[in-house]
Amino acid sequence: MPELKSMSKDELLANYDKYLKEYNNYKEMKLNLDMSRGKPGSKQLDLSNGLLEGIDDYHSINNIDVRNYGVLDGLPETKKIFSDLLNVPEKNIIIGGNSALNLIYDTFARLLLFGTLGNTPWSKLQKVKILCTVPGYDRHFAMCEEFGLEMIPVPLNEDGPDMDMVEKLSLEDDAVKGIICVPLYSNPTGTVYSDEVIERLAKMKTAAPDYRIFLDNAYAIHHIYKKNKLANIFELAEKYKNEDRIYMYFSTSKVTFPGSGIAMIAASQKNIEEIKKRMSIQTIGHNKINQLSFVKFFKNADNIMSHMEKQAAILKPKFDIVIETLEKEFGENKLCTWTKPDGGYFITLYTLDGCAKEVVKLAKEAGVIMTGAGSTYPYNNNPKDNCVRIAPSYPYMEELKTAMEVISSCIKLASIKKELKML
Amino acid sequence: MPELKSMSKDELLANYDKYLKEYNNYKEMKLNLDMSRGKPGSKQLDLSNGLLEGIDDYHSINNIDVRNYGVLDGLPETKKIFSDLLNVPEKNIIIGGNSALNLIYDTFARLLLFGTLGNTPWSKLQKVKILCTVPGYDRHFAMCEEFGLEMIPVPLNEDGPDMDMVEKLSLEDDAVKGIICVPLYSNPTGTVYSDEVIERLAKMKTAAPDYRIFLDNAYAIHHIYKKNKLANIFELAEKYKNEDRIYMYFSTSKVTFPGSGIAMIAASQKNIEEIKKRMSIQTIGHNKINQLSFVKFFKNADNIMSHMEKQAAILKPKFDIVIETLEKEFGENKLCTWTKPDGGYFITLYTLDGCAKEVVKLAKEAGVIMTGAGSTYPYNNNPKDNCVRIAPSYPYMEELKTAMEVISSCIKLASIKKELKML
Repeated sequence: MPELKSMSKDELLANYDKYLKEYNNYKEMKLNLDMSRGKPGSKQLDLSNGLLEGIDDYHSINNIDVRNYGVLDGLPETKKIFSDLLNVPEKNIIIGGNSALNLIYDTFARLLLFGTLGNTPWSKLQKVKILCTVPGYDRHFAMCEEFGLEMIPVPLNEDGPDMDMVEKLSLEDDAVKGIICVPLYSNPTGTVYSDEVIERLAKMKTAAPDYRIFLDNAYAIHHIYKKNKLANIFELAEKYKNEDRIYMYFSTSKVTFPGSGIAMIAASQKNIEEIKKRMSIQTIGHNKINQLSFVKFFKNADNIMSHMEKQAAILKPKFDIVIETLEKEFGENKLCTWTKPDGGYFITLYTLDGCAKEVVKLAKEAGVIMTGAGSTYPYNNNPKDNCVRIAPSYPYMEELKTAMEVISSCIKLASIKKELKML
Repeated sequence: MPELKSMSKDELLANYDKYLKEYNNYKEMKLNLDMSRGKPGSKQLDLSNGLLEGIDDYHSINNIDVRNYGVLDGLPETKKIFSDLLNVPEKNIIIGGNSALNLIYDTFARLLLFGTLGNTPWSKLQKVKILCTVPGYDRHFAMCEEFGLEMIPVPLNEDGPDMDMVEKLSLEDDAVKGIICVPLYSNPTGTVYSDEVIERLAKMKTAAPDYRIFLDNAYAIHHIYKKNKLANIFELAEKYKNEDRIYMYFSTSKVTFPGSGIAMIAASQKNIEEIKKRMSIQTIGHNKINQLSFVKFFKNADNIMSHMEKQAAILKPKFDIVIETLEKEFGENKLCTWTKPDGGYFITLYTLDGCAKEVVKLAKEAGVIMTGAGSTYPYNNNPKDNCVRIAPSYPYMEELKTAMEVISSCIKLASIKKELKML
């Protein structure tokens, strides 16, 4: 398809008919493909089936019977593996339940109800603002909205959030209490934060003494094309005496089994002590059998990295299909652009302004379910209506090929409709 | 040992010397027995070792792959078992993570931050008061204190809380927002709430429209000597149009493995809808592999009840030792009284006023760790200082025999010290 700008009205109308027909053909296939979430495909899950086989010894290295109560913050051997994976000292790690999202939620709840390190509980303040990178993760936004935190969108550049803007807002307004973001292979753009961005986050001056960076490091080891490495934000923050600023979250949801993995939070000593004290009121401890099974299955961090290479080998052809289809269909006609992540779970597609909702709607009507077009923006509001998240992991290869054809068809049709002022 | 009141000063002093010597002999044994918590013993845990063997099919009855994301409120087959066990419709059940305590905590956090069913969030109110049965569960009290809820102690009678007092306080003061209690085999007294008490809880008028009864039904199926059955509070509450008043919690922590069991909350339709909506922001779902393993291991509620009889067979001799030792040592001299629960995990011992702390202190110095003497009261404050919680489940039989001898010795010594005004 040529560029729209070069077409006459008649040509546009002819193309509209052509692509509507193409789209209707797809519609008749009565597809039912769910690409709405970053769910691993079943081949990825099969890699961890050893975990389903159970364990024959239920003692941890310090001879604790993991079948009984106790050990609030996690088994030492589980901490050790996370420590090696993420380059954070074991003493700065608390192992949680099955969900990093839940750990983030609990952190916000504590900040609202109790405050942190002697500061006023956020629920007692007139207003609390949180910086949100856009596009970003819809569940983060839903959480901030739920907790009544005002979200301020900050554009995500190629090397991370617009740090000039982050620094300015954080310094000028003490109601700005933090930033929530995914620093490696960001959801949904796949952005890798540069060393400079990480250092500026660690270094910047903030008006709020209880400013917090919620680093959802969900894809910390989820490389596909290239192994990118984040600068060590804890070491940098310590250098600038801002170590209490960082909460980092990680889970094995996309390493082993989503929903039955192991989540963790890493933070400074003071933060860890505070969280442990509060957590001791909330629970007696998390599932240690799960923690031990994980250790018995993987044994060490190296084996996890090998496992992640197997995951990458399954994901890469899927990402290839998406990128190749987009290049073939849109490489020259400027109807859309897209990100080319080195890892993570998503590719972000930028349509012509005002077309994203229509693309998602058309795709849905043709049986391809994608994430809502606004959902990668706070309050579900992308003023440009140009952003679509593609999650290639869940469908089988053949399904994905078809889905990408459908999506491409939808993009063409929506673009022509837009040009014809039919949207 | 005869009654203290019948002794002369010289007799008291002679007995003091005698029991101090006896106590010091125990001290020299350098024991190290932990009876501080209601931890199951390892023979109880062995009953569930089948759970460690894993599963060979990872599909739920509706063919969901439990290894992947989804199913916020729990697998249908898991709900079915809880429904059969507790006589609550499946639609009124949400399956949680590994900890009922955590579900209670989350409920309080939601009430504080969001309120319920359109009522003002509790954190926006000047004062929120919660009725607490005394003696009661220390972790409930710690939680109320953490959340800044003012605890009002309500005496626990033989058939449950003093309902005249509960009704009066709940009707007269709209800052009284609820009551937290363990209705069957209460921690620590083993009290069974009578049908009348349950009906009054369901029926009573309350000043606060968002009054809530937090029923921690931790020992719902944990019978030992006799199978007591609670009246169905949900049906009663519905009859009096108070069905939104009830939150009921249960977990398999003391059915299978503490810390890696399955927790649940039961509530009215409106409450369940509200919780699910809020929970959908907090997590994508809880550990479904754990839920499925549980179902595959037990298959149905009947098998769980048989399993609980095996648990009872292990616990009964331990409760027997405690009761028999106390009857032998204190049956006639009135130095203490005690509860004789039909089930649950605890026996409560009432010493002479002002002796409980001394008993716990002496026991600790002789290597027998018990729960802190005040801890079964809000703010750790039992004005009479007369209550000691005995948790017989964790020690081996021989250890428990020794521990009960030590505790008896401590009671005698503390009682004589008290009589001699040495305390």
